[in-house]
Amino acid sequence: MAIPYPHLSMETGLSPLSPYPVILTQDELKKIAAYKAVEHVESGMVIGLGTGSTAKHAVDRIGELLRQGKLKNIIGIPTSKKTHEQALSVGIPLSDLDSYPIIDLAIDGADEVDPNLNLVKGRGGSLLREKMIEGACKKFIVIVDESKLVKYVGGSGLAMPVEIVPFCWKFTAKRLQELFGYAGCVAKLRTNGSNGKENGGEPFVTDNGNYIVDLYLKGNMGDLKAASDAILRLAGVVEHGMFINMATTVVVAGELGVTIKNKQK
Amino acid sequence: MAIPYPHLSMETGLSPLSPYPVILTQDELKKIAAYKAVEHVESGMVIGLGTGSTAKHAVDRIGELLRQGKLKNIIGIPTSKKTHEQALSVGIPLSDLDSYPIIDLAIDGADEVDPNLNLVKGRGGSLLREKMIEGACKKFIVIVDESKLVKYVGGSGLAMPVEIVPFCWKFTAKRLQELFGYAGCVAKLRTNGSNGKENGGEPFVTDNGNYIVDLYLKGNMGDLKAASDAILRLAGVVEHGMFINMATTVVVAGELGVTIKNKQK
Repeated sequence: MAIPYPHLSMETGLSPLSPYPVILTQDELKKIAAYKAVEHVESGMVIGLGTGSTAKHAVDRIGELLRQGKLKNIIGIPTSKKTHEQALSVGIPLSDLDSYPIIDLAIDGADEVDPNLNLVKGRGGSLLREKMIEGACKKFIVIVDESKLVKYVGGSGLAMPVEIVPFCWKFTAKRLQELFGYAGCVAKLRTNGSNGKENGGEPFVTDNGNYIVDLYLKGNMGDLKAASDAILRLAGVVEHGMFINMATTVVVAGELGVTIKNKQK
Repeated sequence: MAIPYPHLSMETGLSPLSPYPVILTQDELKKIAAYKAVEHVESGMVIGLGTGSTAKHAVDRIGELLRQGKLKNIIGIPTSKKTHEQALSVGIPLSDLDSYPIIDLAIDGADEVDPNLNLVKGRGGSLLREKMIEGACKKFIVIVDESKLVKYVGGSGLAMPVEIVPFCWKFTAKRLQELFGYAGCVAKLRTNGSNGKENGGEPFVTDNGNYIVDLYLKGNMGDLKAASDAILRLAGVVEHGMFINMATTVVVAGELGVTIKNKQK
């Protein structure tokens, strides 16, 4: 059941409900989802801070509430170097997993959300640190616009990323492609410039010094836990972008309002 | 059934069988096992070249046979930067997995061999490249002196290494230790100087730019495949040193002779 927008319009700076249909941009939808998630942040919490264009709005909003004195004693755990810099710039005190191995709440975007709230993440390249931090959370709120909802993982036709060691990456990419041959998988090294363009430049390098192979799927991989284990068993793979059974809540912003999906227990 | 040594003594340069008991050093036993394994190398083969004090003898021997003209058209795939240099110095032509994704035979040492020919490797720090290359072999011959035989993985009391990303390594080390709490696991970051001495210097860095956490086990981990999956599912883990169901043959050199153990099919 979608919640209409008027109550959010003031905080987000979007125009209030008008008698005429309002066309919201994708970025406005992202902002609405982010602000809704930040309502769950309470003073004193340790917060995992996501990476990407949607999570950015949440980080900005937390900084704003701290400056307004509406939140106090927040500690942020950034999921990337980029988020680290952004969070510092808006005045969020930061630490890391080594110091805070248990995180109260993480807020992050996703590239895909399937009907069971399994996610694809990492098109921004930060999947490993995100998975470490979001796997250590009591609560993980995912914020997306409705374009991210898919019937199955890979169903958007966009990439499912896998972080691999640079050593003999072609060999690892080939084995990944073969693993999901039954789902029409094509594996491409991510390069700087545009995602998935194998001859488009230098390899994209993650914060951990690794490469990303993007898997493009034409069909459903089937059992995701089995697919996950098969990927992780390949020597040369560091981590993949499927976040299975990790999200506790997904906030979806669409043209008709905000929908909240909670994990079935 | 151990094969006695006289037939090997000429090639290895060790003293021939004498009427008095011969005490062989550990390095002499390693050399005997290595030379025995190299008997399986044939001209025209693509050979995975292992890393460590035992594998070093095999690399030297292959170089020697090439120089003598007894082997021709060998291509070596080295499992570490160190082996790469050694193989070049003895005149073995080299390539990599990207060019040769199928390897005829690999020869490498191991730190432990259990009764089912499961291995622990990587005390030398090259476990990831070794696993990639030795996982791509038609045949994998492991060469050890008899001190490496254990009742169960970890049974020597020495380390089972896990390669992890440097990011928040303490967090990952803690989770690894907790995973095998039931087996009395203690996890220690490997540092330069001596293995497992947490405060003994700078972290040891692998060829892939990662750290090594050494797991010391007081008891049996039980089902190794389940243990492997549990380790690999931890975000932050790159690879571990258990080589399960990978060795096709183990050559064991002991005081009484050489024993050949073949994998049960």
